[in-house]
Amino acid sequence: MSNEFDLIARIRARAVGPDPSVVVDIGDDAALFLPEPGRALVATTDSLILDRHFRADWAPADIGHLALAVNLSDLAAMAARPRWALLALTLPRADEAWLEGFLDGFLALAARTGTRLIGGNLAAGPLNIGVQLLGDVEPQRALRRATTRPGQLLAVTGTLGDAAGALALAERAPAALRRRLTRPEPRLDAAACLAGRARSMIDISDGLLADLAHLLGPGQGAQLDVAALPTSPALQAAIPNTAQRWALQLGGGNDYELLWAIEPDELAAAQAALAAVGSEATVIGRVRADPGIDCIDREGRKIEINSDGWDHFDR
Amino acid sequence: MSNEFDLIARIRARAVGPDPSVVVDIGDDAALFLPEPGRALVATTDSLILDRHFRADWAPADIGHLALAVNLSDLAAMAARPRWALLALTLPRADEAWLEGFLDGFLALAARTGTRLIGGNLAAGPLNIGVQLLGDVEPQRALRRATTRPGQLLAVTGTLGDAAGALALAERAPAALRRRLTRPEPRLDAAACLAGRARSMIDISDGLLADLAHLLGPGQGAQLDVAALPTSPALQAAIPNTAQRWALQLGGGNDYELLWAIEPDELAAAQAALAAVGSEATVIGRVRADPGIDCIDREGRKIEINSDGWDHFDR
Repeated sequence: MSNEFDLIARIRARAVGPDPSVVVDIGDDAALFLPEPGRALVATTDSLILDRHFRADWAPADIGHLALAVNLSDLAAMAARPRWALLALTLPRADEAWLEGFLDGFLALAARTGTRLIGGNLAAGPLNIGVQLLGDVEPQRALRRATTRPGQLLAVTGTLGDAAGALALAERAPAALRRRLTRPEPRLDAAACLAGRARSMIDISDGLLADLAHLLGPGQGAQLDVAALPTSPALQAAIPNTAQRWALQLGGGNDYELLWAIEPDELAAAQAALAAVGSEATVIGRVRADPGIDCIDREGRKIEINSDGWDHFDR
Repeated sequence: MSNEFDLIARIRARAVGPDPSVVVDIGDDAALFLPEPGRALVATTDSLILDRHFRADWAPADIGHLALAVNLSDLAAMAARPRWALLALTLPRADEAWLEGFLDGFLALAARTGTRLIGGNLAAGPLNIGVQLLGDVEPQRALRRATTRPGQLLAVTGTLGDAAGALALAERAPAALRRRLTRPEPRLDAAACLAGRARSMIDISDGLLADLAHLLGPGQGAQLDVAALPTSPALQAAIPNTAQRWALQLGGGNDYELLWAIEPDELAAAQAALAAVGSEATVIGRVRADPGIDCIDREGRKIEINSDGWDHFDR
């Protein structure tokens, strides 16, 4: 058992490394860093909540990975580059082994994505894991929500529904699905390809339908080709019932894939750029001028899905 | 009872205002803002924990004020100027009245200090209030911890021990002390005077002795003139016993005053500048080359104080 300052010293010893942009890091009243001239800063914060985002029996390294990954996914959605992170941990007790495991996952992902942990806060209390992530972007290349135009295509990276499948199957979930839940991969490479090509972008955290509603411009709607939703072989095998699978893919959340709108004549160039970094892109629908989202099946029939995504206070 | 998106819309409606530095604010995947050329960025995060920093029966506006104030105090300690804030709220339920009260206190202090709320996160779970605050400073004017030199004087703003007195007296605390606990005033004006004059600075959040230990340079110590500790008339009246008062002033925490080191021949100019913005400054001791902190009473005798400040995991 350690005290607060021992733990901070431990975090500092593991996190600090040479970075010319960082003047003051962990251990002072605040961190001091130098932004790059000409770039806009991008800031986001997401908290992990026990039994909402993770379970108590998860490996601490998975929790550490997830805490950073969900924030990196928000920066990816703006087509921004991650730079500096703060970590606000509220822990029931000063558990050094848990913290070391957490840092294993957090810092491995940080190193891989060019993210430097420069500060944070450590307090005793009910478990709460908050990450604040700062990145940068050329202002004119940032992608926003709600800037779609009718006629644009809707597309997503990767496959949808795997994390929701893992949640639905619980202990019976195959490892491939479980890994999508515990170790989501923020789509930073894909986002960099889409900067300057996509016209609006969001990451899918609350569920495709809920996040699509946020992506669409005011008064606009969309037609979704549900049969086109990209599906992993693991989800197909684990949940053979099509309607059940669609419900997970449309409403389940935790995908951390990118959903974007693009002009039809710019799709081929975007797909080629994505393929060059190993990213798949699947067109799943089209923006329309009328509000509402219609889900269309293989035969062109409108279908009803009993899920409209995740609202944190509704479950 | 509202859902998450209603609450976010409510926060957005109250927080948004014209600010040429902010390109994208509340409601997108991340906030986008433009730093001022030539200035370093300063980032801090502090979380408020129930029954550690505040009580459940506190007015929500007091909690909102405190959540921002403790972060502003960290920026003051760096002599930085506050600019942009993110708010990460984890709430047991979507209580609109509580949130409105919280925003009353938070946004009033934000407006008064030039802080713009540009984003955040809202989740359901055990109450946790996290603020991330960004500011800026000319790099060469930032003040750090642990950069003292032997022979420098130690000084503080305001009075010490009031908030600790309020905690100790609980329901019997007079309003003047209670207000120091619930509505601490971050010393941003004083900090601006001390930039370029003080040689090292910290804010007193964990208790004078604990924070002094962090202020001192490696291997250095200090002599503290305990009889010189600045004391409010309210604390003097409420806690007439000198030893009890000293214990609160040395170890109590939650003062959010500034503690800084300054060369003796620069003190008069600093005090004049502070007086011009209505700030008091009191010299309370001196940095020495030998490690350890000695507390000296009016007669020059070394005294023992049974408190070494606050460690979050030790109580």
